[in-house]
Amino acid sequence: MTIAQEMLQLATRAREASRLVATLPSGIKNDLLRRMAEALLENAAPLKTANALDLAAGRAKAMAPAMLDRLELSDQVLQSMADGLREVAALPDPVGEITGMWLRPNGIRVGRQRIPLGVIGIIFESRPNVTADAAGLCLKSGNAVILRGGSEALHSNRAIGEVLRQTLSERGLPVDALQVLTTSDRNAVTELLKLEEQIDLIIPRGGEGLIRFVSEHSRIPVIKHYKGVCHTYVDAQADFAMAERICLNEKVQRPGVCNALETLLVHQDAAPQFLPQIARAMAQAGVEVRGCDRARQLVPTLAVATEADWYAEYLDLILAVRVVDDFEAARDHISRYGSLHTETIVTSDYAMSQRFLREINSSVVMVNASSRFSDGGQLGLGAEIGISTTKLHSFGPMGLEDLTTRKFIVLGDGQIRE
Amino acid sequence: MTIAQEMLQLATRAREASRLVATLPSGIKNDLLRRMAEALLENAAPLKTANALDLAAGRAKAMAPAMLDRLELSDQVLQSMADGLREVAALPDPVGEITGMWLRPNGIRVGRQRIPLGVIGIIFESRPNVTADAAGLCLKSGNAVILRGGSEALHSNRAIGEVLRQTLSERGLPVDALQVLTTSDRNAVTELLKLEEQIDLIIPRGGEGLIRFVSEHSRIPVIKHYKGVCHTYVDAQADFAMAERICLNEKVQRPGVCNALETLLVHQDAAPQFLPQIARAMAQAGVEVRGCDRARQLVPTLAVATEADWYAEYLDLILAVRVVDDFEAARDHISRYGSLHTETIVTSDYAMSQRFLREINSSVVMVNASSRFSDGGQLGLGAEIGISTTKLHSFGPMGLEDLTTRKFIVLGDGQIRE
Repeated sequence: MTIAQEMLQLATRAREASRLVATLPSGIKNDLLRRMAEALLENAAPLKTANALDLAAGRAKAMAPAMLDRLELSDQVLQSMADGLREVAALPDPVGEITGMWLRPNGIRVGRQRIPLGVIGIIFESRPNVTADAAGLCLKSGNAVILRGGSEALHSNRAIGEVLRQTLSERGLPVDALQVLTTSDRNAVTELLKLEEQIDLIIPRGGEGLIRFVSEHSRIPVIKHYKGVCHTYVDAQADFAMAERICLNEKVQRPGVCNALETLLVHQDAAPQFLPQIARAMAQAGVEVRGCDRARQLVPTLAVATEADWYAEYLDLILAVRVVDDFEAARDHISRYGSLHTETIVTSDYAMSQRFLREINSSVVMVNASSRFSDGGQLGLGAEIGISTTKLHSFGPMGLEDLTTRKFIVLGDGQIRE
Repeated sequence: MTIAQEMLQLATRAREASRLVATLPSGIKNDLLRRMAEALLENAAPLKTANALDLAAGRAKAMAPAMLDRLELSDQVLQSMADGLREVAALPDPVGEITGMWLRPNGIRVGRQRIPLGVIGIIFESRPNVTADAAGLCLKSGNAVILRGGSEALHSNRAIGEVLRQTLSERGLPVDALQVLTTSDRNAVTELLKLEEQIDLIIPRGGEGLIRFVSEHSRIPVIKHYKGVCHTYVDAQADFAMAERICLNEKVQRPGVCNALETLLVHQDAAPQFLPQIARAMAQAGVEVRGCDRARQLVPTLAVATEADWYAEYLDLILAVRVVDDFEAARDHISRYGSLHTETIVTSDYAMSQRFLREINSSVVMVNASSRFSDGGQLGLGAEIGISTTKLHSFGPMGLEDLTTRKFIVLGDGQIRE
């Protein structure tokens, strides 16, 4: 059997299983997820044995300690996987919700009702805990899921998949609703991405290279998360103590994540007072600040920001700072260099706050709050399957609802079209 | 300048114009559309002159009379284009709507607000009226639009585009918010489909060949409308007079459209009475009925249906009929041969009606009403940009709302993440 045939069979089995999963009542799905959580903890020993094979292979290849750390299925990681499944079990079920119903003049009633997407493919790198997290979200939203993790976590992903599939099997549910792709054939993904009849959505989770590869090869719709070049704009009228607190939190609390601050824009009237203040605070926090010419006139100790800095997603303790004439200049900077992820204004001017909300069309737009809240859990979605920085289907952090679509339902009593 | 550079410039201008269009108040957009309607009627003479060139070229190429008919900009067609723009002007503006707002424990308020998609590309065949219809829907929803019509309507599309752009210009709005692509270079579309940074969505409107071409070449998300293989299932318990009326309306009222009935499924207990009745009615209406073996045992005069008939989108006065054991068999037939477009049940059994609504996940699912209502206008969306038969972003008839997405808005008073 060729890899193309193998992928077609696998995806066809997922499609068939998805029909049953789509109709499962919430109670059955929630019980399933809670039982999966238990099963992961009960199988800690065999999961760690499998994980040890990946860790040994990683060490043999001189994998960096940080990478090895992310690869390890410690008791703590297993517990957090189990907790995650239980949290998703406790969330409201989006499937079946009728989001609107109206009466037409001819007497038919028309509504829109949430249904699962069908089959979701998730292609990810590194952390094996994604296998359990993504499986929980996809099954809870009534979808079948095909998971393809990185080769460095092959044994761990396979073992987690077996535990979860065993739970499906115990409950008399189709095991093919959850498939973990563990072939070493590098063409497996390329073949999978052609199966637009069998798979409804692909979510790549990983670096920009992975996302571009998937996007260019896929005939299936892809939800893309490129970069997080997040901006904060400190307005002329702002509480500078609040601005300092917010900017520090955005840059320093966890600099390696996509919702961290990368470029600070400061109104020219705020700059003389606020720039020296924030430069001092950032320096104390160990942040290298790179400024435009105007910023460096006010704070000569700043490093020089070049054009490349405005595009940079540092993911590190580095911050670019630019002084701008006004809101329009800030908006134009964001629209030119931004990544549509998260933008924040710090202002005490009501009209300006409304203008920022109206005219900045990134996926998350904030007033007087830290960009670090741009996350499914923090925003109240319960859990997050990813963040979309493109606008189709979903824009911004994606929760359970984003793994569904809506069909029209029509209730008549014999109406025909004249 | 190469065609790739030309397309990049054009799309970049559209992207820039889209930023302003996104912020226009509803009143300005509605006035613009009403003025466009007037301008089309005032320019009837030059539009017809341009159209005459396309008609002459079509006749010289021995174009079929039906095609020539669709190409013609008659007074009636111009009037309906103007009426269409005025109807869209009268619809509610989806942009800015806040679809939910909630409070988080830390005091931040989180909401989701509708925003335009940005730049929409529409690639269509034949009818030049699409130029005005699509422009109206895209502009009303705050988007810039790039239109590429068929080569047979080149002069007509260009002339309509000029009238509409003139109206934008008169109002001091950016003409690049509406661009009609009239280059004869066949690579123009292929190049356009690469511009994922500049264009947010591509909607192909035309035959399956066009849609597959666009889908395979596009790096931009595509909303696809493949086939309409619509099914009606007549349950064991049904009002057969109603079933006959609905099936006839679905098959005969306008057989050449995607929401016409193609396959009739009849419960085995209904078949002995209903099949002879519907076969007679269809024959009287000039419909060729092709039946399965069981159907032909009951009505021996039926033609023979083969496997290919179950997949067929006839778009003609032909109907495939199959007798099924029960609901499960009907459901399995629909999931195997259907196109996710529209399915109908005729039943007087409440539980069965609910089961059909729950278990059939096509884009439109109906109880006791004609499939011919599966249309944006009929369902109450006001107007329709197309129908999606794939599940991402939009599923089923698409109205103004489907030309928008949602961003998150966050209102804080200084909150940071601990």
